[in-house]
Amino acid sequence: MAQNIYDEPEFFGRYSQLGRSVHGLDGAAEWPDIRALLPDLGGKHVVDLGCGFGWFARWARQHGAAHVLGLDLSENMIGRARTDTNDPCIDYAIADLERVELPKSSFDFAYSSLALHYIADFERLVKTVHRSLRPGGAFIFTIEHPIYMAPTEPGWTLDGHGRKCWPVDGYSVEGPRSTDWLTKGVIKQHRTLGTTLNTLIAAGFAIRHVQEWAPTAEQIANHPDLAEEVERPMILIVSAQRG
Amino acid sequence: MAQNIYDEPEFFGRYSQLGRSVHGLDGAAEWPDIRALLPDLGGKHVVDLGCGFGWFARWARQHGAAHVLGLDLSENMIGRARTDTNDPCIDYAIADLERVELPKSSFDFAYSSLALHYIADFERLVKTVHRSLRPGGAFIFTIEHPIYMAPTEPGWTLDGHGRKCWPVDGYSVEGPRSTDWLTKGVIKQHRTLGTTLNTLIAAGFAIRHVQEWAPTAEQIANHPDLAEEVERPMILIVSAQRG
Repeated sequence: MAQNIYDEPEFFGRYSQLGRSVHGLDGAAEWPDIRALLPDLGGKHVVDLGCGFGWFARWARQHGAAHVLGLDLSENMIGRARTDTNDPCIDYAIADLERVELPKSSFDFAYSSLALHYIADFERLVKTVHRSLRPGGAFIFTIEHPIYMAPTEPGWTLDGHGRKCWPVDGYSVEGPRSTDWLTKGVIKQHRTLGTTLNTLIAAGFAIRHVQEWAPTAEQIANHPDLAEEVERPMILIVSAQRG
Repeated sequence: MAQNIYDEPEFFGRYSQLGRSVHGLDGAAEWPDIRALLPDLGGKHVVDLGCGFGWFARWARQHGAAHVLGLDLSENMIGRARTDTNDPCIDYAIADLERVELPKSSFDFAYSSLALHYIADFERLVKTVHRSLRPGGAFIFTIEHPIYMAPTEPGWTLDGHGRKCWPVDGYSVEGPRSTDWLTKGVIKQHRTLGTTLNTLIAAGFAIRHVQEWAPTAEQIANHPDLAEEVERPMILIVSAQRG
């Protein structure tokens, strides 16, 4: 089973104070770009893999989705999602994405925000999602970008000329990375961008869009701390479609 | 028109001494992975964009291609390719890939090795290649990987812990990069991996495989200088198909 940091009180307390936890989708700088890729959700059946507090589930319903199933490993997250949701057409369930089973040909759209980089058996999950989608169904997800995940020491440093840079090493060495983010020893699963895409293609998905997210000039003007995201991508957005 | 460094005597002299210039395809460490992606060339009409000395054109003919058209900007390259080739079913022509026109629906396979990162108008070229392929035709190319191309100072450095790393900056800033490789001021065109793939998709290609090339353990054992390629990818291999 995947590491369940979101049920550790210290981690959960800190996570709950992040902008994206307090302000929801609009608290995530990459959300406008994700939103631009979303299909029309009117009447659609949606599954959200790693639904967290349920922000996307509620947004999807506000935008016409017929039903949303939100899955998350964390009791904390699912508990809070249920508390914050009053909608009979949203269901939440605790589920380990390493082992989850989904009903076949049942969803029109699968969504996942910053969850799948915790999953070791990505191939199994991708096949499961593919089977769970109806033909033509879309799968849009974000993960931490492999450039961001790869390094032994994932933090800004200075190159030989004193210029701020992101120190990439081990890019082709796939597997776990232990980093400190809100707490010590968070385990993430590094995969090359090629592996991520080839796993989708092998499962039968067509790649529709690949976005290595960077902020707009307007976003940087409003949030100068976003400027460094131009130097190396932190978030990868992938849009795929079941044939 | 693209910078034509291959017709500068100093550059061309040095380029001619590289392993891949002397030994051909087998002198390129990424060749086994490219070869594994190639379609059956039997009876096929092939175009090679940036054909250099014609190594691939001759290989394609040895593997059953009906005809190969090799295009290159450099008179030096085309001259040497013609000298080294004795085959009425291979034609070479000088062509600037920024402006080239290709006959419509004429090729079964388009190939390009380490040439397209010199091209500023990638979108125009991709559309041109798409139109020139017959339905179902494949387009396989290699370029320098954007992780390799992006940095202001593209060379190994040490991170804050004294560990060798590749100093990524400017990843999302697309456009020209001037570097010193065999001569000073070689101009290459940096694009994110996302832009490369999205340009192909928008032109009507299906993405079949994306490989961020890394050497095998056996290759490293035989050529220890290849070990650093595991740390950050230098070469990107893309396989696409016209629908």
